[in-house]
Amino acid sequence: MSVRDNSIDLTARQQAQADAAARQVTEPQSLVVRFPASEPLRLDSGREIAPLTIAYQTYGTLNADKSNAILICHALTGDQHVANDHPVTGKGGWWATLVGPGKPVDTDRFFVICANILGGCMGSTGPASVNPATGRPYGVEFPVITIGDMVKAQARLVDYLGIDQLFSVIGGSMGGMQVLQWCARYKERVLTAMPIATAPWHTAQNIAFHEVGRQAVMADPDWQGGAYYGTNARPARGLAVARMAAHITYLSEKALQDKFGRGLQNRDQHSFSFDADFKIESYLRHQGSTFVDRFDANSYLYITRAMDYFDLEAEYGKLANAFTGTKTQFCVVSFTSDWLYPTRDNKEIVKALNGVAANVSFVEIESDKGHDAFLLDEEVFFATVRGFLNAAAKKRGIA
Amino acid sequence: MSVRDNSIDLTARQQAQADAAARQVTEPQSLVVRFPASEPLRLDSGREIAPLTIAYQTYGTLNADKSNAILICHALTGDQHVANDHPVTGKGGWWATLVGPGKPVDTDRFFVICANILGGCMGSTGPASVNPATGRPYGVEFPVITIGDMVKAQARLVDYLGIDQLFSVIGGSMGGMQVLQWCARYKERVLTAMPIATAPWHTAQNIAFHEVGRQAVMADPDWQGGAYYGTNARPARGLAVARMAAHITYLSEKALQDKFGRGLQNRDQHSFSFDADFKIESYLRHQGSTFVDRFDANSYLYITRAMDYFDLEAEYGKLANAFTGTKTQFCVVSFTSDWLYPTRDNKEIVKALNGVAANVSFVEIESDKGHDAFLLDEEVFFATVRGFLNAAAKKRGIA
Repeated sequence: MSVRDNSIDLTARQQAQADAAARQVTEPQSLVVRFPASEPLRLDSGREIAPLTIAYQTYGTLNADKSNAILICHALTGDQHVANDHPVTGKGGWWATLVGPGKPVDTDRFFVICANILGGCMGSTGPASVNPATGRPYGVEFPVITIGDMVKAQARLVDYLGIDQLFSVIGGSMGGMQVLQWCARYKERVLTAMPIATAPWHTAQNIAFHEVGRQAVMADPDWQGGAYYGTNARPARGLAVARMAAHITYLSEKALQDKFGRGLQNRDQHSFSFDADFKIESYLRHQGSTFVDRFDANSYLYITRAMDYFDLEAEYGKLANAFTGTKTQFCVVSFTSDWLYPTRDNKEIVKALNGVAANVSFVEIESDKGHDAFLLDEEVFFATVRGFLNAAAKKRGIA
Repeated sequence: MSVRDNSIDLTARQQAQADAAARQVTEPQSLVVRFPASEPLRLDSGREIAPLTIAYQTYGTLNADKSNAILICHALTGDQHVANDHPVTGKGGWWATLVGPGKPVDTDRFFVICANILGGCMGSTGPASVNPATGRPYGVEFPVITIGDMVKAQARLVDYLGIDQLFSVIGGSMGGMQVLQWCARYKERVLTAMPIATAPWHTAQNIAFHEVGRQAVMADPDWQGGAYYGTNARPARGLAVARMAAHITYLSEKALQDKFGRGLQNRDQHSFSFDADFKIESYLRHQGSTFVDRFDANSYLYITRAMDYFDLEAEYGKLANAFTGTKTQFCVVSFTSDWLYPTRDNKEIVKALNGVAANVSFVEIESDKGHDAFLLDEEVFFATVRGFLNAAAKKRGIA
C-alpha cells in the first residue's frame, strides 16, 4: 500500500494485484459450476442471464443424508473465501474466526458452502464477465439484479450439490438480506436461519450513502460509461472515494473516536497542508486504495443497487407475509452500536416473525464497534452462533 | 437545475450562474473593505495574507454608543447574505427567518454584521482571489487557514467599523466554532455569545466525512491540482459528490426517512437501471448539482480543513482554559437529532464554561430535523434567541 501525501496514490500500486483480481473473473481460484446457456437464470426484472457461472468454496464434508449443509451469504464487498486465504490479497478468510474446525460454525461437523454472489467479481457471473451477445465484458449491459436474483442463483448451486434442505443459512449485512430472502422464497429448504446485523428493507439514509458511492464512481472519467475493461484505465479514484464514504458507516462514532480520535499520523503538529495529518485520514485513504485493487467498480454499482431495491415488505405487501407458514427456526442478531442496520431494523424482522408465530430468538449484542462488529472478535456473538447451531444440530440428529 | 437520468448533469447547467458566482470573488455585490498590502493578516500557520479583503453585509443601524452590534458568523457553505436575497442564486437569505425587522435578531433594534469568511468565495480573500505574488488566482498556493484566522479577519472588520465591543456574536455549526474562538481570543470584545449546534473540536467522524469530500474533489481531473481557474473546466463532479456526502450528515436518519423514505421519483416501479429511482437519490443529486454553481471547490477544501484543525482544547491545553476570566454571557444551543454536532459535544462547551464559573445557559431543543434544524423554522429556537437577546439588551440599556 502506498499513500501519497495529499491524495490516494494509484500510480505506485502493484499492478500485479489488480491483474490477479481481474483474472478471478474468468479463472477463479475456486470451485466453479457453469450452467449451460440453455438453462438461463430468469431475473426479477424479467431479463435473463445465460450462461450462468457460480464460483464457490466449501469447507468440511457433506454427510450421507445431506443434512449438515450450511450456506453462508457474503456481504457487499465480501466473496466466497470465507475461511481460506484470499487468492488476491493473501489475507485470511473474512470469517475465518467464525468458520473452521472447532469454530462456532464447526467444519468438523458441518458442510459449509459460500458462493460469490451473482453480480460479483470473483468468478460468479457479473458485469466484468463476458456478455455472450457481444463477446466483450457486460459493463452496464449487465442486467440490474436483486437480492432475490442472488438467492435464486444460490439455489441453483444448492440443487447442483444435490441438497434439498440447508441445515442453516447464515449471513451478516447484505448476507443477512439474502438469508431473509431465502426464508421467504424457499421456506421448505431452510431448517434454521441467522440474519445478522441486517434489515428487511433499505432506508433512505442507506440508499443515500450508496448513491454517493455510485456517483463517485460514475463521476470518474476513467469509468468510461462502464466500458473500462481492456482499456488501461479503471475508475480507481472514484471507487476509492465510494469505499471511504461507505467505510465511515461501518464503524460507530465511538469506535472512530477511540481508535483514531484527533491523533496525528507520523507528525507532532498540523502540516498546514492537505496531507493526511490525522490518523483517521490516513486510515480512510488506506481503505480506499487497497479496496480498488481487489474489487470491480461496476460490481460495486450493481450490488449497491440490489441492496437499495431490497424491500421484503413491498415484495410481500406486509413484512410478516414474507414468512407466512415458515417452519424455519430463526436467530436474529444485532449489535448495539450498529447505525447502518441498527437494532431497530433487526427488530422489525423479529416483529414480523412473531406476527406469524415463527420460532425466533433475538440477541442484541453489546458492542461499540459499529456495523463491522459482525466481522470482528465478539465473544458473545461467537457463543450465540455456536449455541444456536449446536442446539439445532442436536435436535436434527447431526453428530 | 437539470439532472440527467443516471448521473449529475453538469453540461446543461446555466453557465450564467457559475459565471455570476465567479464574479463575486473579485466584484462582490456587498460592502467591501480592502486592507492595504502594508497591513497583512498574520495567520496561525505563521504565513501572511496581504492584501486582505473582507466582503460583508450589514442590517439595521449602529447606535450612537456603538453598543448594539451583533456579529453573525456563517457556516461552511454559507456567506454574508444572511437576510437579503442571494446575488447568485436569487434565493432568500440563509437566516432570513431569524434576522430582520421584528425577527428574533431584530434589525430594528440591532446592527447586524456578517462577513464572508477568510477562505470563502463571495468576496473575502480566498483561494480564488488573485495572489499578488503571481497575478493569478491563489489555488493551492493559498495558505491553509484556521477558525482562529477567520476570527482575526472578522476582528479587523469590527475595528474598521469602529466597534470596541460586540453586543453579541452568534453562529451555528462552523459559525459556532467562530463564536467560541471569538470568546476565547477576544474576551473583552464580546458581551454575549450564542454558539449553536457546534463543537469545541472536530471528532474523528467529522474529519472522516470532510476527508471523503476533499478526496472527491481532488480525484476529479478537472481539479487540475487546484489550478482550474481560467481553464474551461472546474471539478464540478467531484464537488457535487462531496456535497452529497456532506448533505447526508446535515439531516437526521428520521428526517430522511420521514421526508423521502423509499418513495419513488416520478415512477411507479423500479427502473432496473441506475436512474434516480428514489426520491432521496433525486434530492441528493439536486443538492450536489446546485451547490457547484455557487461555490468554489478550493474554498471547500480550505474551509473543511480549517474545521478539521479546530480544537480549542488542544489550543488552550484544557478546554476550560479557553474561557478563563470571561465575562461574556453565553447561551449554548443544541438540537436533539443533530448527529454531526450532537448535544454531547455542545455540553462539553457548557461544562468548560461552568468550570470557570462563566454565565452560561444551555438549551437543548427537541427536533427531528438533524443538524440543519438551526437553519429551519424551529419555534423554540426562535423564542430562545429572542428571549436571550432581549434580556441582555434590557440589561445593557439598548432601546
